[in-house]
Amino acid sequence: MTDDDATRHGTDGDVWAVVMAGGQGTRFWPLSRAAHPKQLLPLGGGEESLLRATLRRIADLVPPERALVVTSAALREATLRELPELPPENVLCEPVGRNTAPCVGWAAATVARRDPHGVLAVLAADHHIGDEAGYLDVVRRATEVARGGALVTVGIRPTRPETGYGYLELGEALPIAASAPGPGAGAARRVARFVEKPDRARAEEFVRSGRFLWNSGMFFFRADAVLAELRTHLPELAAGLRALDAAAACGREAEEVARVYPSLPAVSIDVGLMEKAADVAVVPGDFGWSDVGSWTTAWELAAKDAAGNAAPEGAVLVDARDNLARARAGKVVALVGVSGLVVVDTDDALLVMPRERAQDVRLVVEALRARGATDKL
Amino acid sequence: MTDDDATRHGTDGDVWAVVMAGGQGTRFWPLSRAAHPKQLLPLGGGEESLLRATLRRIADLVPPERALVVTSAALREATLRELPELPPENVLCEPVGRNTAPCVGWAAATVARRDPHGVLAVLAADHHIGDEAGYLDVVRRATEVARGGALVTVGIRPTRPETGYGYLELGEALPIAASAPGPGAGAARRVARFVEKPDRARAEEFVRSGRFLWNSGMFFFRADAVLAELRTHLPELAAGLRALDAAAACGREAEEVARVYPSLPAVSIDVGLMEKAADVAVVPGDFGWSDVGSWTTAWELAAKDAAGNAAPEGAVLVDARDNLARARAGKVVALVGVSGLVVVDTDDALLVMPRERAQDVRLVVEALRARGATDKL
Repeated sequence: MTDDDATRHGTDGDVWAVVMAGGQGTRFWPLSRAAHPKQLLPLGGGEESLLRATLRRIADLVPPERALVVTSAALREATLRELPELPPENVLCEPVGRNTAPCVGWAAATVARRDPHGVLAVLAADHHIGDEAGYLDVVRRATEVARGGALVTVGIRPTRPETGYGYLELGEALPIAASAPGPGAGAARRVARFVEKPDRARAEEFVRSGRFLWNSGMFFFRADAVLAELRTHLPELAAGLRALDAAAACGREAEEVARVYPSLPAVSIDVGLMEKAADVAVVPGDFGWSDVGSWTTAWELAAKDAAGNAAPEGAVLVDARDNLARARAGKVVALVGVSGLVVVDTDDALLVMPRERAQDVRLVVEALRARGATDKL
Repeated sequence: MTDDDATRHGTDGDVWAVVMAGGQGTRFWPLSRAAHPKQLLPLGGGEESLLRATLRRIADLVPPERALVVTSAALREATLRELPELPPENVLCEPVGRNTAPCVGWAAATVARRDPHGVLAVLAADHHIGDEAGYLDVVRRATEVARGGALVTVGIRPTRPETGYGYLELGEALPIAASAPGPGAGAARRVARFVEKPDRARAEEFVRSGRFLWNSGMFFFRADAVLAELRTHLPELAAGLRALDAAAACGREAEEVARVYPSLPAVSIDVGLMEKAADVAVVPGDFGWSDVGSWTTAWELAAKDAAGNAAPEGAVLVDARDNLARARAGKVVALVGVSGLVVVDTDDALLVMPRERAQDVRLVVEALRARGATDKL
């Protein structure tokens, strides 16, 4: 590394971002489509897509040449259009979705080949972060802990008894001495246990106890550390990854991915690895995190007028409150006497629903799929 | 008249339809536009435009050559496209709207020139009729009374204390013997008085009394009779019509219309003539009349599913009740958990409102006009 590189990347030249961007985001229909899913949409309140925001936020730590995006083959071109600065070989295209463990494993194998000492920062492509400085502080801290060999997750201080997230219980403080946490980060701790989506009563108990955090789905680990753990806990996956390494060595990785990937175990990295591994740590964070899970979240994040409406330029609003409206530029949206609605218009589809029904968009998508209206999906 | 003519037109060969079709129908925005107003839209529940339905309903009585349509110059081509069977000279184009008295007067003068014994049936282009046989019966009866020289209106038995309509009070029975009324028609009566749109309390009193009918805005009179009354009660208008007659005699009517029309008194035929004339009669009718005044009426008239939704083919409806949705063919409209909404989508505008706010569409149109968005009007 030259002095210039050291200046540019600080001491973080070993950090590789792995952005998981294969989701379809059916909950944002009709704006999200198979060919233009959630992560490519500007759902975080501004003009920027969620995917672009994900890489921009860590740009101080990770330049494009150390950012990998894992997505589906169908989304390769759209992803590169959205991130033209990304080297094309940094887009890993899954021939078929097999949940997150194969995705993370493949990315770890790829990083290990390019940088044996590399540290992965596994990020979702569809999160929104309110306090970006606080977030970066937590990321830096998590990578620091990961350099010691632990598998590290980031836990979010819960603000409500959410039943849609996984939780993790805080264990003892880490024995290793680490730098003092910044304002958005707590001291790193062991993870006592992971809990899948709880029911309402348990979620309320978790929040009350102060000992539970939301599992953010961000993970930090050395490539060699996570590959070693995969060999122990997901040997089939590890074997598949070895086959990819061998193929890559003779320039035939793409063909091998097509052959091997569909048979890899379809399990999440949480369940398949994090819950089983011994050396698992959590860095608590509190930086305005949102998983942008539905149109409700999109409304919460959007810029709104004094009456709570997030509507396109030129909208005509008469006695309208707390609505989210989306339409192409130049189309007039007129809302009269309605409140709390989500109105999303595209060229070939229109959705109208109360915000609290946002989860039921999937019912619409299912109905369209059932009738074979693939052009609307 | 030949025997063939008599067979073809029955004894009604003197009846001329005059269809007033100049309205803009801003209450049906965004579907109705300046260049494509209410009367050209299929708002009566089927595929047929309100204008076309108006002429079809009386086709047994009035062939296209005796149908005049009065509209604006801007709508001439659209009107002829909608009614290709109409002789082009039967479309009278007002250079500027001057309310209904000049419109009726010009039509009466036109009929008088072509058929001195002609009887006018003045009809609105934007009404819906549920019982078309009953309607025709009333029309026949009204023309019969009109042949005796009276100015005749059709009064609708009120079904609710509507404050948006004019009312008329029934007077004594007509002294002339007329054929027995059919099932949809009551015996012709004098009109005791006309009452402009009443307040709620008066409207309730009117309905309770049984002596008041809604003024339907349909009028029947001999051309010579109405022209004579205009000379008495609207002499300025009568003078203008004489000027048009003189110009027409030398083939220069269009130029004279352009010159004279803007200065004619802008008054309604109700206020300017019917309320003042001595020999005014009413034929009561009860034939499922609706003035198709708003999106609320359009929902009432539309074909609906079991849950009360009138939605385009292919709509996805989840827990949706009593909604009216309109969109171009092929566009998917998804309504989730909403009820009583009006959702009208066009290529360049989208309206969402509760049905009971239908009157407030004009506020949207006013807002667009105020900001100079003429392409949306």
